[in-house]
Amino acid sequence: MSILIKNATLISMDNTREKIEKNVDILIENSSIVKIEKNIDLENKSELQTIDATNKVVIPGLINTHAHVPMSIFRETVDGYNMQDWLEKKIWPMEDNLTKEDIYYASLLSFIEMVETGCTTINDMYYMTEDSIKAMKDVGIRLQTTRTLTDIPTDESGDKRIDELLKLLSEYKNFDEKLTFNLGIHGLYTAKEKYLKKCLQVAVNEDLPIHMHFCENNKEVDDIRKLYNKEPIEVLKEYFMGKKTLLAHAVKLDKQDIESIKDMNISIAHCPISNLKLGCGIANIEKMIECGINVSLGTDGQGSGCSLDMFETMKFAALLQKGIYEDAKCMNAYDVLKMATINGAKALGLEKNIGSISEGKKADIIIIDLNRTKSNPENNLISQIVYNTTGEDVDTTIINGRVLMENKRLKIDINKNELFKKCEEIILRISK
Amino acid sequence: MSILIKNATLISMDNTREKIEKNVDILIENSSIVKIEKNIDLENKSELQTIDATNKVVIPGLINTHAHVPMSIFRETVDGYNMQDWLEKKIWPMEDNLTKEDIYYASLLSFIEMVETGCTTINDMYYMTEDSIKAMKDVGIRLQTTRTLTDIPTDESGDKRIDELLKLLSEYKNFDEKLTFNLGIHGLYTAKEKYLKKCLQVAVNEDLPIHMHFCENNKEVDDIRKLYNKEPIEVLKEYFMGKKTLLAHAVKLDKQDIESIKDMNISIAHCPISNLKLGCGIANIEKMIECGINVSLGTDGQGSGCSLDMFETMKFAALLQKGIYEDAKCMNAYDVLKMATINGAKALGLEKNIGSISEGKKADIIIIDLNRTKSNPENNLISQIVYNTTGEDVDTTIINGRVLMENKRLKIDINKNELFKKCEEIILRISK
Repeated sequence: MSILIKNATLISMDNTREKIEKNVDILIENSSIVKIEKNIDLENKSELQTIDATNKVVIPGLINTHAHVPMSIFRETVDGYNMQDWLEKKIWPMEDNLTKEDIYYASLLSFIEMVETGCTTINDMYYMTEDSIKAMKDVGIRLQTTRTLTDIPTDESGDKRIDELLKLLSEYKNFDEKLTFNLGIHGLYTAKEKYLKKCLQVAVNEDLPIHMHFCENNKEVDDIRKLYNKEPIEVLKEYFMGKKTLLAHAVKLDKQDIESIKDMNISIAHCPISNLKLGCGIANIEKMIECGINVSLGTDGQGSGCSLDMFETMKFAALLQKGIYEDAKCMNAYDVLKMATINGAKALGLEKNIGSISEGKKADIIIIDLNRTKSNPENNLISQIVYNTTGEDVDTTIINGRVLMENKRLKIDINKNELFKKCEEIILRISK
Repeated sequence: MSILIKNATLISMDNTREKIEKNVDILIENSSIVKIEKNIDLENKSELQTIDATNKVVIPGLINTHAHVPMSIFRETVDGYNMQDWLEKKIWPMEDNLTKEDIYYASLLSFIEMVETGCTTINDMYYMTEDSIKAMKDVGIRLQTTRTLTDIPTDESGDKRIDELLKLLSEYKNFDEKLTFNLGIHGLYTAKEKYLKKCLQVAVNEDLPIHMHFCENNKEVDDIRKLYNKEPIEVLKEYFMGKKTLLAHAVKLDKQDIESIKDMNISIAHCPISNLKLGCGIANIEKMIECGINVSLGTDGQGSGCSLDMFETMKFAALLQKGIYEDAKCMNAYDVLKMATINGAKALGLEKNIGSISEGKKADIIIIDLNRTKSNPENNLISQIVYNTTGEDVDTTIINGRVLMENKRLKIDINKNELFKKCEEIILRISK
């Protein structure tokens, strides 16, 4: 099966190409991009689907590097709560009631939301992971996942969780080329030192990158200090040096902290909307970028992050630094688009396969319709995408060479209204 | 002509009613809301248009209290510039080339954008105002406007501008019930003391509320200090005491400044997106609200504010204070929705006519379709509107009893593609 995207305005995010190319064709064969040229002529080619992208913009599928996929059902439960109360009084009691079937439907809701809003890869951190994988397979998105590891409050469950992760790895290793794994440590404040070492050994043994919450808010920083008798950044330097690690949030790092980790193998998943909504603050992304640290973007779970719309996340990421630095020249739009694409791929160790539209890479591609009032006049195309595009402007979503949405119509065999009803029933049941 | 909205989920923002009412009908006669009840039965009534709002949410039309309407054409021209360079090197040279026809088309673009995104009233500050009024009449939105007053750089043009405002008032006083005026002083830094006094006397003579930029960034604060030899807040207290005044931005007010103006007749038009984008900072809205100051919302012109989407503005307003106060309990969603509706009406002195869906008020009403993936499950309807709704989810827009958009279809006699082309041509011409 081949797909030919005709006549695109292409923002490939491939640094060997022009930033913006006009009237370009893109040929996809099976799961891969095989040719990017003007006027590709494939007359008489059988099994060819042509997609007309005239007056539309083609960019790489967006990459969400920090999420809790089944938390879709907790959307908008946080108003009026602080973070700790929200978790203790609302979320944890509900999570205790979640079944495997709930995880499947809640994941399905997130994956549909991804496809509709132009996100093609998501990095999940949750549990009952098999059921999210089942939903991933049914929808067709690209997933990096884990089984979240923590040994607090109880020691025993920590080892049980490692066993579950190992079982997951052995069972799903060759399940689907769109599926990869990392070692998800919930956080230093929920892993005692001995357990942390054990987890990191698993990462080495299984050759897994690490994904961990880090310094999201002041309480977490205090908890880490109490548990380790050290500053969080010191724990990081002691145990994570040289290990490929993706840290989510990193809100509470000062300039000196950031300087001190710039030579480690660390990426930061910046989640600006969740960080604001939970009252955590604003991460110093500008300083991280200045230090050459790879910064990608995440929505966090919808409970705190509202939605999975990565365009909104780009807009917040771009605007917040300008505001706190009081400098409109911070965070140019192209760099922000990199954060949502190629930087995301690097954060997940997938940059050879995804993150840009390049010959030889996997075909994770979205097409955006900018024929909207808010997109006119088009004075700066890349700024338009960062500041005046939302997930709702995504027209077509292709993942691994498969068209999952075309002209806003989902090509997935799912009854959305039934799914919405199912999710409503879940939240009603588990909140009793 | 009568309109009956059937079966709505109503968030009226009328504090004599329940916050959320289910299955309500709303009867509109001519320009006004005449009845809000369950099961209004109007069998056999002639000239009745029925709008089915089943499974939809009905809220008051949003009120944008600070904009520069014709600046639609400068959308996304700011990336990579600081505010002063952007104005001096990009905007002002282009503005010098604007014709009356340009103002008409650029205003038309903004007013169409308003209708499409559920904003029903806008407060404009620009010049060649007659041409914006012409566009306002052609589209049918509600407008408060002015002729911007400034006597810097040259003294003479200051008086000429006052004359233009007076002419505007006499010519358009009874032009359209949707049109009102204020006295728009550009800012203290562009009005010398003598001229300021003259402007304020016009406000008294003509019984006009005042609209003025105030303390948007540090440079402005310095310029005011130099010009008046006083702190901006002292100038404000000396000249504006007791006068109904709407201040745009107010980013550079500290807590003490805010305390000191709480008993004045002042509203603040908070423009969070523009304030971030121009590197101005984040206004201390939480403190203003604590002091009982009326805070409304604005997008500013699209040059700095990106779009006229008031839903996005609500989301930024809600999230920023949580972030800077590091308190997730700041800015509950209902209060934010008030800022975009009834507080906006108060800021413009129009609260008797608009800002809530109440019997006797003008019918400025929007209908939102929340049957979207990102709106499910619906755990908190008001949070969904503030955090997970954009202008694109607005289904139907009614202004002054006239349906301007229904089920996403504009009911205005305008060819959008021709308008986009026209605006493209303007920007090409004036940027030469």
